[in-house]
Amino acid sequence: MEKGQLLYEGKAKRLYATDEQGILWVEYKDSATAFNGEKKAEIAGKGMLNNKITSLLFEKLQTAGIASHFVKQLSDHEQLVRQVSIIPIEVVARNVVAGSMAKRLGLEEGTVLKQPVVEFYYKDDALGDPLITEDHIQLLGLATPQEVLELREKALKVNEVLIQFFKEVGVQLIDFKIEFGRDDNGAILLADEISPDTCRLWDMETKQKLDKDVFRRDLGNLTDAYELILSKLGGQHS
Amino acid sequence: MEKGQLLYEGKAKRLYATDEQGILWVEYKDSATAFNGEKKAEIAGKGMLNNKITSLLFEKLQTAGIASHFVKQLSDHEQLVRQVSIIPIEVVARNVVAGSMAKRLGLEEGTVLKQPVVEFYYKDDALGDPLITEDHIQLLGLATPQEVLELREKALKVNEVLIQFFKEVGVQLIDFKIEFGRDDNGAILLADEISPDTCRLWDMETKQKLDKDVFRRDLGNLTDAYELILSKLGGQHS
Repeated sequence: MEKGQLLYEGKAKRLYATDEQGILWVEYKDSATAFNGEKKAEIAGKGMLNNKITSLLFEKLQTAGIASHFVKQLSDHEQLVRQVSIIPIEVVARNVVAGSMAKRLGLEEGTVLKQPVVEFYYKDDALGDPLITEDHIQLLGLATPQEVLELREKALKVNEVLIQFFKEVGVQLIDFKIEFGRDDNGAILLADEISPDTCRLWDMETKQKLDKDVFRRDLGNLTDAYELILSKLGGQHS
Repeated sequence: MEKGQLLYEGKAKRLYATDEQGILWVEYKDSATAFNGEKKAEIAGKGMLNNKITSLLFEKLQTAGIASHFVKQLSDHEQLVRQVSIIPIEVVARNVVAGSMAKRLGLEEGTVLKQPVVEFYYKDDALGDPLITEDHIQLLGLATPQEVLELREKALKVNEVLIQFFKEVGVQLIDFKIEFGRDDNGAILLADEISPDTCRLWDMETKQKLDKDVFRRDLGNLTDAYELILSKLGGQHS
């Protein structure tokens, strides 16, 4: 397998073509961004940690029957994925009130939800990734009503699996953001990444934050937190 | 019927008890507010205009089979309504892109929607009346899933009737906000007001704005616009 031309560079990853049709080469960057890109930093080792954590979690999810774009980890900061057409909806699942939900609804951060809440955000940096409803999704033509149901169901299933997986290693899954893509047959696959950049993860005992809030809120050393997550999940720092 | 004690004073109306159980006396104020109360003014005659327009529209809607709290107009700026327990959800129906929808979704104001969009906002001034989803409504315990369906259906029905009513007098109904309340039996009634304060109304020919955007955006004389709406609807200025 050979790395081809750069197809896309996002805030956290670069996507390259390969010499195999339908397979992309992903490079995780060391960039950290928050607040829609207003806060930025380069954090050595972050790309490697997210690549390893995402690889571990996608493997775990595939074992649990959740199809994703993930093919395999290539190196410390690279992986191969299937090419999909990303649906421009950020699907958020929440188990505990935190972040924008606390602010929007006036609820206290840390409040446990009786049942998970799924939210959809329009993936559009210029608009600040606004919350959208199913009516908006139809209006914008982002997904069919049937697909919206599927996104919700898949998000809840991912949530179920991840809650249990993290619980076993003493970590509480507060919330997370996932993205999906359509393959050539229109099948919906879990895509993008699942890492402490895209999840809120709290130590069950100490309630210490082990995710991007460490960066957003200047709570300490980001890579220490991410390394702790990786090691709890059984991964190697290299 | 006698006016009793003041029960509640909002931004645009005062509610009083009466000597009849379950009936309230509403007084429309001349206050204009926008942007969650940040912009304020006293505009002589506005209360009278909104009282008359709301009375006309609620009568029209009752004729079309849409039950509301409205009992009767009492005077230029007063009406009687049935007491209901207001559901703290602002239900918005939209036919044309304008206001916050243009901003949220990056769509051009004036774009005609293929089908009406219904949105729910959490009626909470301190939070700035945020957009909420059905999951949030369940989480906050604002309404049951069955009630949410009912709110949506009723909003679409009100929309249908009002579109036609305004069309007949040369006015395009762009969008509107309505509120609902539960009566003693738990039945859901249309409540609050329907006026140029709560609707966007554009002259079909000239596209002139005949609603609160005149105040929000400093587009001219507010009462001129509201008087035009009242006279188009066949009402008398007094």
